Amino acid sequence: MKTAQDKYPSRTEGAEQILTRETPVIADDSATRKGPLTAEQVSAYERDGYLFFDSFYDSTAVKVLEEETERLRVSEEVRQSELAVTEPTSGATRSIFAVQTVSDVFSKLGRDKRILEIVHQLMGNAVYLHQSRLNLKPGFQGKEYYWHSDFETWHTEDGMPDMRAISCSIALTDSYEHNGPLMVIPGSHKYFCQCAGRTPENNYQQSLKRQDYGIPSDEQLTWLTDQTGIAVPNGPVGSILLTDSNLMHGSNCNITPYPRKNAVFVYNDVNNTLEEPFGATYQRPWYLGNREPETLEPIDFSQSLSQHNVSAN
Amino acid sequence: MKTAQDKYPSRTEGAEQILTRETPVIADDSATRKGPLTAEQVSAYERDGYLFFDSFYDSTAVKVLEEETERLRVSEEVRQSELAVTEPTSGATRSIFAVQTVSDVFSKLGRDKRILEIVHQLMGNAVYLHQSRLNLKPGFQGKEYYWHSDFETWHTEDGMPDMRAISCSIALTDSYEHNGPLMVIPGSHKYFCQCAGRTPENNYQQSLKRQDYGIPSDEQLTWLTDQTGIAVPNGPVGSILLTDSNLMHGSNCNITPYPRKNAVFVYNDVNNTLEEPFGATYQRPWYLGNREPETLEPIDFSQSLSQHNVSAN
Repeated sequence: MKTAQDKYPSRTEGAEQILTRETPVIADDSATRKGPLTAEQVSAYERDGYLFFDSFYDSTAVKVLEEETERLRVSEEVRQSELAVTEPTSGATRSIFAVQTVSDVFSKLGRDKRILEIVHQLMGNAVYLHQSRLNLKPGFQGKEYYWHSDFETWHTEDGMPDMRAISCSIALTDSYEHNGPLMVIPGSHKYFCQCAGRTPENNYQQSLKRQDYGIPSDEQLTWLTDQTGIAVPNGPVGSILLTDSNLMHGSNCNITPYPRKNAVFVYNDVNNTLEEPFGATYQRPWYLGNREPETLEPIDFSQSLSQHNVSAN
Repeated sequence: MKTAQDKYPSRTEGAEQILTRETPVIADDSATRKGPLTAEQVSAYERDGYLFFDSFYDSTAVKVLEEETERLRVSEEVRQSELAVTEPTSGATRSIFAVQTVSDVFSKLGRDKRILEIVHQLMGNAVYLHQSRLNLKPGFQGKEYYWHSDFETWHTEDGMPDMRAISCSIALTDSYEHNGPLMVIPGSHKYFCQCAGRTPENNYQQSLKRQDYGIPSDEQLTWLTDQTGIAVPNGPVGSILLTDSNLMHGSNCNITPYPRKNAVFVYNDVNNTLEEPFGATYQRPWYLGNREPETLEPIDFSQSLSQHNVSAN
């Protein structure tokens, strides 16, 4: 466990303070750097900690992604693998980690140049895949996911040194205000909420289903939401949401008949690779925190789909 | 238990069918009857099963209602009475039934002519208070309330003969898309979902916290939402929502810091008073199903507030 020179200590049984972020949110030259984002979009990401793109993928791409999602969802091999998180009662697959290792389609999606060019513009550096997952939140009984900063977990349990990662979530179903969409606290990425308690041994086995450590206090959440309130960036299937690793987010439960599915890719700066965990006595498995970084080379995902279709016919 | 000539049988261990409603939703002459609603509003209520009025009460009324709500919330006498439903862990007051019996302000609110004139226009008859409650859904840990038709319970457990009641919910906090607002299935009031199981003895003691009987099946809910989807009528404090007694509704949980509070008055046609329950072997207590109907006489709530202020100063 590494604690020396820790800018963002958490779960230390000390006071649970709100620290001001020291790490810049974007590269110095993001606004003028070559890339798909306008200066206004770069500025909004810096200020809010997220950017939402409505219908980023067209119906052709969506159809391929939906079919591949369904193939993975019902795959018995995937369901029984260590990559799958299953529902306690039904045994149904709820999440699949490291989805690029079991799916050529999602492996290509994660390297799509349309996404990577945005990430590179914001990050100002090459990136690798820290984590990926396919989330399959069911209808009727979809459980809530309480407020958390991903970085707090990745730092404390995985040893990610700094706030230099960007997550991209691709909506694989229509997301409505009523089916448990992601909620974010705009601007919360500029603060680090120190959390209570010490991480128990192998906490991650439980925390993928229900997070008990690394959760902010009521007082911290009230303070954060008092600044800017809560935003619910949602839209139709094929929309994408880019979020800073330290953005406070969560989701309410989902009693509607509409499931909510998405794929998430976490892009980490190649100069921000994992060290010893800052607040845990174990290392989480490779599919949660990748310790063999490979710089991602952009590909043309749409182009790959037409090849995909040709080979299928 | 009364089962003869039951138009809307439920919890009979028979097939769980969706029956088409026989009872008219509104009075024959609602559209032309003297009253505050336009013909379009009457028609929308008939079609959708609800009507929403943004900021129906002004800031003067809201302030009085907020103060009275807080007085009741912290009242130890109310908390320990049979009228209060409390949180299992904290013991905090979550709902107060028959709120008109412990609060002069809410007693007057429930008879406000601005509400009653709307109810009379839709109902075409005099009404009495079947039930009332003050709901105090907390932030952070507010639980979901699963889909249900109020009429299904009032018919099965209270012996309400027919779908001749209108609920009015008055928002006592701002209601957002993210703090667990009420969700409704527009048009669902025109169908009756027969529910599974038989009502256990004294089910109501448990069902006020978590409903296990009288809940529709996944198939029924999918069918209903396939017709028209889901609507989330929400707005600022002081807004009101009128709903048909048989409208299918529910709410997701609330992990935001914002509590959600509302007062609900259930107006029942004086010709639709309670009989023996149609699907239970007990009668629920008076504060859940009123068996001593008194026709409500409209008063001027705003006027009463100025008197309230005068007497307080």
